[in-house]
Amino acid sequence: MRRDSKMVPKADTKLSMSCANAIRMLAVEAIQKANSGHPGAPMGMADIAFVLWTRYLRHNPDAPTWPDRDRFVLSNGHASGMLYALLHLSGYKLSIEDIKQFRQWESLTPGHPEVDHTPGVEVTTGPLGQGFSNAVGMAMAAKRLAAVTSDDSFSPVNHRIFTMMGDGCMMEGITQEAASLAGHHQLGNLIAIYDDNQITIDGPTSLAFSDNTEARFKALGWHTITCDGHNHEAIARALDEATEEADKPSLILAKTKIGWGSPNKVNTSGIHGSPLGREEIELTKAQLDWPYEPFQVPAEVYDYFRTSADFGRREEANWTQAMETWKSKAPKLYARWELHMDKPIPSGAKSALLAAVADSGAAATRQLSGKVLQVVADQTPWLIGGSADLTPSNSTALKSAGIFGPDGLVPGMSRAGAYLHGGIREHGIAAVLNGMTLHGSHRAFGGTFLVFADYMRPSMRLAAMMKLPTIFLFSHDSFMVGEDGPTHQPIEQIASIRIIAGMTLLRPADADETAMAWYYSLHEAKGPVSLLLTRQAVKPLPKPAGYTPDDILKGAYAVVDTDKPEVVILATGSEVSLAVEAAETLTKAGKKIRVVSMPSQELFLSQSKEYQNRLLAKGQARVVTIEAGVTQGWQRFAGDTGLTIGLDHYGASAPAEVLAEKFGFTSKAITEKILALLN
Amino acid sequence: MRRDSKMVPKADTKLSMSCANAIRMLAVEAIQKANSGHPGAPMGMADIAFVLWTRYLRHNPDAPTWPDRDRFVLSNGHASGMLYALLHLSGYKLSIEDIKQFRQWESLTPGHPEVDHTPGVEVTTGPLGQGFSNAVGMAMAAKRLAAVTSDDSFSPVNHRIFTMMGDGCMMEGITQEAASLAGHHQLGNLIAIYDDNQITIDGPTSLAFSDNTEARFKALGWHTITCDGHNHEAIARALDEATEEADKPSLILAKTKIGWGSPNKVNTSGIHGSPLGREEIELTKAQLDWPYEPFQVPAEVYDYFRTSADFGRREEANWTQAMETWKSKAPKLYARWELHMDKPIPSGAKSALLAAVADSGAAATRQLSGKVLQVVADQTPWLIGGSADLTPSNSTALKSAGIFGPDGLVPGMSRAGAYLHGGIREHGIAAVLNGMTLHGSHRAFGGTFLVFADYMRPSMRLAAMMKLPTIFLFSHDSFMVGEDGPTHQPIEQIASIRIIAGMTLLRPADADETAMAWYYSLHEAKGPVSLLLTRQAVKPLPKPAGYTPDDILKGAYAVVDTDKPEVVILATGSEVSLAVEAAETLTKAGKKIRVVSMPSQELFLSQSKEYQNRLLAKGQARVVTIEAGVTQGWQRFAGDTGLTIGLDHYGASAPAEVLAEKFGFTSKAITEKILALLN
Repeated sequence: MRRDSKMVPKADTKLSMSCANAIRMLAVEAIQKANSGHPGAPMGMADIAFVLWTRYLRHNPDAPTWPDRDRFVLSNGHASGMLYALLHLSGYKLSIEDIKQFRQWESLTPGHPEVDHTPGVEVTTGPLGQGFSNAVGMAMAAKRLAAVTSDDSFSPVNHRIFTMMGDGCMMEGITQEAASLAGHHQLGNLIAIYDDNQITIDGPTSLAFSDNTEARFKALGWHTITCDGHNHEAIARALDEATEEADKPSLILAKTKIGWGSPNKVNTSGIHGSPLGREEIELTKAQLDWPYEPFQVPAEVYDYFRTSADFGRREEANWTQAMETWKSKAPKLYARWELHMDKPIPSGAKSALLAAVADSGAAATRQLSGKVLQVVADQTPWLIGGSADLTPSNSTALKSAGIFGPDGLVPGMSRAGAYLHGGIREHGIAAVLNGMTLHGSHRAFGGTFLVFADYMRPSMRLAAMMKLPTIFLFSHDSFMVGEDGPTHQPIEQIASIRIIAGMTLLRPADADETAMAWYYSLHEAKGPVSLLLTRQAVKPLPKPAGYTPDDILKGAYAVVDTDKPEVVILATGSEVSLAVEAAETLTKAGKKIRVVSMPSQELFLSQSKEYQNRLLAKGQARVVTIEAGVTQGWQRFAGDTGLTIGLDHYGASAPAEVLAEKFGFTSKAITEKILALLN
Repeated sequence: MRRDSKMVPKADTKLSMSCANAIRMLAVEAIQKANSGHPGAPMGMADIAFVLWTRYLRHNPDAPTWPDRDRFVLSNGHASGMLYALLHLSGYKLSIEDIKQFRQWESLTPGHPEVDHTPGVEVTTGPLGQGFSNAVGMAMAAKRLAAVTSDDSFSPVNHRIFTMMGDGCMMEGITQEAASLAGHHQLGNLIAIYDDNQITIDGPTSLAFSDNTEARFKALGWHTITCDGHNHEAIARALDEATEEADKPSLILAKTKIGWGSPNKVNTSGIHGSPLGREEIELTKAQLDWPYEPFQVPAEVYDYFRTSADFGRREEANWTQAMETWKSKAPKLYARWELHMDKPIPSGAKSALLAAVADSGAAATRQLSGKVLQVVADQTPWLIGGSADLTPSNSTALKSAGIFGPDGLVPGMSRAGAYLHGGIREHGIAAVLNGMTLHGSHRAFGGTFLVFADYMRPSMRLAAMMKLPTIFLFSHDSFMVGEDGPTHQPIEQIASIRIIAGMTLLRPADADETAMAWYYSLHEAKGPVSLLLTRQAVKPLPKPAGYTPDDILKGAYAVVDTDKPEVVILATGSEVSLAVEAAETLTKAGKKIRVVSMPSQELFLSQSKEYQNRLLAKGQARVVTIEAGVTQGWQRFAGDTGLTIGLDHYGASAPAEVLAEKFGFTSKAITEKILALLN
């Protein structure tokens, strides 16, 4: 079912040029109308895009979520005008009126592509290097899906991942990380096309860039092809070669001219990010022999795109029919396929996860998480994930799942494995996890130390913006890391993750909270989750009368309670047991204390105001917050009469207990601070 | 004055091995005593370190800040035990007692190396890839310093930058970015040594890594050499070849065994990050023929290191003498040298910067910054900096300074230039800026869009931890970016930068504030600064009676004032003019309003409590804060009775004025909110 250049009747040269120019001019006019946008890349890449979309890309404009469609990821998202033109011409639900609304409030054609907003857009792109790395993740997910759902007679997975990228994506470090992983994973289903136009915003790339990119990618295990990015037959030959390569990812280095078609601005940085201007548009139209009005597309162009789309429609219909046949022929594999598509909540999931850590006694939450993960992995075959080379530290190993990668590359590795050894590539992995999740067949998780969340941050933001339920796992979540010292001790990371809009942070305090954090992450989260776990052991929390583990999912609940408290101590993670100890002393001293464990600020703030006010004894008690990180963000709870206890300076290298003493994270120091507040 | 293997008498094989084993065993015993640390890398790299430090590195243990010393950057900072052993054996002020205090509270030997803490440590390292990238920055700074202070007869700059790195550094994307820059800049003064031991925490590198690293670095323009990292003469030959290469940075790929010397743990991931244990230490000692007590070093080892150090002492003395001669021979060049070392405040600096933007009318602060920069560049020849390929957007061009890079590589480029076209490599550049600043000869600045501060964050944190006065410039500092949409609109970035401990964030509101922000950044900052600048024009603020520009450096000051205000509106950057407009309306409505411009929370919080309380009319007025970003962090000022106005969700693609209307950032919407608060 592979599509290739031979399947769609080739357009003659004149029609080919018209089609490419239609893409160019739709982008150019949309940008001109908006008086904002990036015409250079659409004009330079239109020829490649035309050949790729009409003669290679397997897609059905009527079924933008067909699971076996080829994916197209525009990594240099500023070329959005080109993507919208392609979607419109191909027949997606994107009208010429939508194109005219480019970059306007609530239009379907925002400045950079946004997934789940515009039909046919696979990923939100713009921050450079991310889309390319997402594409690597998609290709990995497709490889695994194929491995676990196919037999010798049939595979429901025939799609390829195409991505286009510019010099920006090429220079970003994240691209190196993801490209290195792609080479290692021998992703023959991945084809990247590099718009090699030698111009960036500052001027010629020679100002800043001397890489031999082809040699670099060869060194990473890629198959590389060079072509003239304006010669349609040369592009087709390059795509033929790339789609035939099964064992390596392919990079097509397409030599192009930025702003191709503009007589005065071609090959200049000036055309990268500014409208051409009416005068230069007219000159461009003359040069391109394009006599049409703005947003006018000749009928033969629409016809040709429609012919191509019809091939896609037939392919999807054939695939759907084949799946029906296969459903009865290979019911087990089909059931597995359905699991990947639907990701149902397994019956008894909650109690199974809780049981995995019942009676664990004092333990590090990373270890509790490790126990939970073994059950999770058995229940959710659509889960894939790993660690940025901190498997033993993060406790992320999936003991029964096998290592994911090329069959037999190392012992225990196969395409059907679910555990990803990501290497020391935090940023690349974060984007790869997003790509796996975007693919639709998997949910992905990945771990590193909390302090290195900083390396992942741009991808975490995009996960949140896309509402992707990627699971980021961060162990070693405070200065209690100890001897490794300040470079490895997070202080601002908890707060900095919380302020990513749409991110849910869970910092469990004991076994139940860890199990429920995983339950939430897998089965309830509507966006990304950050799971923060301790290096050191924590004690199980007391369970007050009426407690059920579902309380945890309210984001905050009382673990020590009293009528009419005078102080509510609010703590997270490892600091909750400290709070409980302090409360014991304070209660003995005659104070009325409630201790609230708050595994998630976000979940708590989504509860009713009534619940929030009641739990915090609003207007009645003073609120004291405790968290082993910066205090920023806790004032909203402590208010004018309360107290925030945290760590607003870097840590130090010493045994954890010494640091706890020095930094005031002992129940004694906390008790004293609370008594001082009350007096 | 180059040092090479021929200058220090070669130790015989037995002594060589003893010296390397002394390094190994000091590290191993220190880790064992601390019961914490990373013995694998010190054991694996000891041979290389011994040869490098005794026969190549030009350094004087008595003068750790000698400006012409070779720099040694341990990029894989977890091998700190090896570095401390080298410093101790070489005769730096680091006693054997200090070594015994490895990883203890306030010791000179923390878990990862910390600059300005331990004599001879050049950089704080640990987060992988950072040290390597800092080394690239140091080599660039040295190239420029040489270009502007040397003539044909003499150069005060003869030093090289050596860095050691492991598989972690090698896989990180930041390393790719910095290595690509290093190749482009033809840094013949940079030598990186890759501890190629094929083992990481998760196991063999083959789990995750298939790069041909040598081919990759060749593709980046590096000179590469492979050697046996345990054969001292092979190491010396590689270092000879590397130090002789003048036109390219060199990468020595040293094939090593992690944990070399340990009979049972060599070549295993288990030895990476855990003490050997007493039993394995004894077996190691037997294998190494090392009969000594823990922390005992044979006299001949000390002697040999001392002989080597004496060469360094003589070299420094010779250099110092040569500088004296040169001072009279080339007074102008010497004066330039002194400028780089001392970085004095030019007379009239403040008024010159203010004058650069006087009477600018309404203008974007990025453009005002651009004007200031031209004056700055003339006044401070020790300033170097640029942009991550956003020069026109960031307004960072230094018009009279020339482009920094290999002489004549592109027109206008020379080693004496001060403007860095960094390419699309935010993370690498941030670390390179840190390296340039660490070098001691320059202050460095670099720009990108505020939203991409996320890409730079790990290096910004290290700048703050090291108290390095690197200047990070971020334009396009709010949703007012407009059409580019949510991927390019910062919301959480302002708050997330503020919570980096030791970072000073300045978000100027008009011309004076922009000029003073630069003044502060260049001449007063004791740590890193983040300058946040608008894309859009802002109006000059009113200047109340008694105003002087020095008020700005208090971090906050009144721009509209009244006796006994009932509301204090506190705003930053572009929102201050909104506040002023709202205040006008509210004053007309009979309300008593003070408007406080707060360009820097950090500077304000460093003022006296009295000043803070008076300005905010504490206990008297309600405080309303306005900032076009998340509200987190403003509750501390608004308290229980105030109001925080911000943007706690992602932006959207539309013209900026439309977004301002939709998101409530108009003086009308703000006035209404304040009236509602009062009623």
